[in-house]
Parts: sequence; C-alpha cells; structure tokens
Amino acid sequence: MNMKKIVIILSGGMDSTTLLYYLLDKGYEVEAISFDYGQKHLKEVGRAKSICAVIGVSHTIIDMSSMGEHLQSSLTQDEEIPEGHYTDETMKSTVVPHRNLIMLSIANAIGLSKGIDTIAFAAHAGDHTIYPDCRRSFASIAELDLATSSDNYDIRVLCPFISIDKTDILRMGLKLKVPYEKTWTCYKGDEKSCGKCGTCVERLEAFEECGVKDPLEYE
Amino acid sequence: MNMKKIVIILSGGMDSTTLLYYLLDKGYEVEAISFDYGQKHLKEVGRAKSICAVIGVSHTIIDMSSMGEHLQSSLTQDEEIPEGHYTDETMKSTVVPHRNLIMLSIANAIGLSKGIDTIAFAAHAGDHTIYPDCRRSFASIAELDLATSSDNYDIRVLCPFISIDKTDILRMGLKLKVPYEKTWTCYKGDEKSCGKCGTCVERLEAFEECGVKDPLEYE
Repeated sequence: MNMKKIVIILSGGMDSTTLLYYLLDKGYEVEAISFDYGQKHLKEVGRAKSICAVIGVSHTIIDMSSMGEHLQSSLTQDEEIPEGHYTDETMKSTVVPHRNLIMLSIANAIGLSKGIDTIAFAAHAGDHTIYPDCRRSFASIAELDLATSSDNYDIRVLCPFISIDKTDILRMGLKLKVPYEKTWTCYKGDEKSCGKCGTCVERLEAFEECGVKDPLEYE
Repeated sequence: MNMKKIVIILSGGMDSTTLLYYLLDKGYEVEAISFDYGQKHLKEVGRAKSICAVIGVSHTIIDMSSMGEHLQSSLTQDEEIPEGHYTDETMKSTVVPHRNLIMLSIANAIGLSKGIDTIAFAAHAGDHTIYPDCRRSFASIAELDLATSSDNYDIRVLCPFISIDKTDILRMGLKLKVPYEKTWTCYKGDEKSCGKCGTCVERLEAFEECGVKDPLEYE
C-alpha cells in the first residue's frame, strides 16, 4: 500500500481547500471527495470541482441529495440561515447531524476500495463550540470506529488543523498560494456572499486579522 | 422524547424484516429506512417498501446509488457473485466497506432530526466471520461514535439478534407471522432466487433446520 496516498473531504470552502494545498505541499497524492447532501450552498461543490480540475487532483462528487430533506438543519431545510457570530447559540441551527461521520465513513469506504487507508478532514479549533463532530475526541473515536467496522487497524483519520483557528489556516494558506477567490464559504449560496451568516463573519474576521482583502464579492 | 420510537435499518431481507416484526411486537413505533447503495439486488428495497406499506409502517428510501460504483464489492461491481457457503473465504468479495456504519450514521441522523435516539439493525451471530461491521464490538463503538458525533449520550444502537443465528431468527419470525414470501435475500437479484450464493444457502439452511419450506421461488 502506497503510504503517500490520502483521501480528503473537500467542501470547496477555505479550510478544506487549504488542507488540500497543505497535503499536496507535504507530498501526498490526494483523492478529493465532495458531497451533495442537499445543502443550499451546493455551489461550494462546484468550486471544489473547479479547484481540483485546475491543479489535476482526482475529484469525486457523491450525490446524497435525497438525504437532505430528512435532516433537521437550516442548511438543508426551508428555514432562514441565522446571521451573527459563528459561536452564537443561534448558529446551532446550522448543525447537520453526523455530517462528518457520514462523510468520513463514505469517503474512507471509497479510499479502502482503492487501497488508501488514510483520510483527512479540515476540522479546526474554531468549530468546536457548536459542532461536536469537529472535536479531537470525535476524530479519535471515528478512527477507532472505522477500524473496527472494517477490521483494518491501519486506518488513520488526520485533522492537521484541529488545534488551530481559521486565521492560522488562512495565514498558512496564503503562503501556500491557495486560490481563495475560487473557494466558497457562505451558507446562503446566493450570487454573492452575504457577509452576515456565521461562516461569512468568521471568514471575514480571518482575512482582517491577516491584513488581506478577501477576494470574494460580498453583498 | 418518546421512549417507544425507534428507527430501524430495513433491507427487505429475512433478518431485518424479522427485526421489524419483533420490535412492533415489543410495542415500538418504528420508522424504517432502506438504502439504495447501488446493490445488484436492489429489489430487496422494493420488498421493504411493500412490507411497510401493508402494515402501515413509515418507510424512507435513501438514494445513494452514485456511491456504489466507487465501492469495491461484488454486490456493486460488475463481477460475479460468489457461490458457496456464507462463511467461505470467497464470500469476502460481498463485503461492502463500512456499509453498516454508513447506514447507521445516516439513519441515526434522520432519527435525531425527528427526536428519535434509538436505532436498531439486524446483525446476527452468523455474520461475524466475514463481516466485521456485524460484530458486537462494532456496534458498541458505533454507539459511542454516534454519541460523540452529536454530543447526545442518549443514543442507543440496538442489535437484538447479535447472539443468535439465522435459524433462531427464523424460528422467532415464524411465531411472529413474518411474511417471508414478501422478503428478498438473494444477492444476484434476478427473477428467481439463485439458491447458490452464500446468503441463499444460509437462508435455505435456516428453513430446513426449522422444518419449513421457504416460500420463495428458486432457480
């Protein structure tokens, strides 16, 4: 088994796209997988596809859009995306139950089918408050669960950004020349980014703290 | 939260259909969920749907057929379904990586969206040799993983058949008047059951051991 191959979950947002560039910089051969789970901001997946096409990274989109209507989340249901700070109580409506576990188990299943044991996702320290599936404890138990599920104890779940925040990720990504103009973050998925939902606010804060202008257009 | 509601993963086969009747008999209000993961024997899902329709059980089908082509398994790829005994080495080609974990995480996500913490699946003692995701160790770690993933430590993964085999399940199901003529087992998914693939062989053995004729038609 080639030790340098890795699967990553690529949403097309800032964090996972930086992770893609980070892993390529480390010499990994990357297989990127994106998911249509019925999210309003499906345009992120189109961004992921374009980014991979330009740099010649293998990219697979898994269509699970039929799942979205059954999941209670403002990202998939006909309800307002909350505005405000990412860590606010109101942002909890953006949780999609077990999203990372669903994506990890499918992406790892696809990886194993190609002989790739290692999988990475872009959970970071800023996510932990409202998203339990972005914590280190989750990643550790998910790794054990994937191993037990397949009797393969070589499986590794990597989350290199688990202890750093979005500003740290951006600082790293700017050095790696990540094309942030091609990424998508806003949960609303309209023509321009709203600049008001939690994830837009967090993105704009990161750019401000790095002293760089965000190349995306905002309302 | 209503303690009597439960989600079950219903393939439309003998084991999960017996589990459905077993849980109804125990007084549970059941939400059944089936998956199209690109399996050749998709007709099992049609059987699940018909069974639920007749007895008035809520049934949801999740379409993840786009995943199948990426999963290495004789159930999803253009390769021969092996014939022989269920526990033979050759039957390993029928493993679908992480199938139960993928189904449990999605079905539990749907359950949580409706306020239902408990989920059941029909893993049984005969499966353990070749399917790691049918062992008690897997079910226990999956329960912890689902809890950690959602910060909900009320989640319970039930597998009432984990210590009994298919003959025991059938014996129980016959008492519960499970309509076995409406179930589907054969991995080949042709007009009639083949009677030769591992899962047909195991089914036929169970009927023979119970001294009852299998109501399905065989080649």
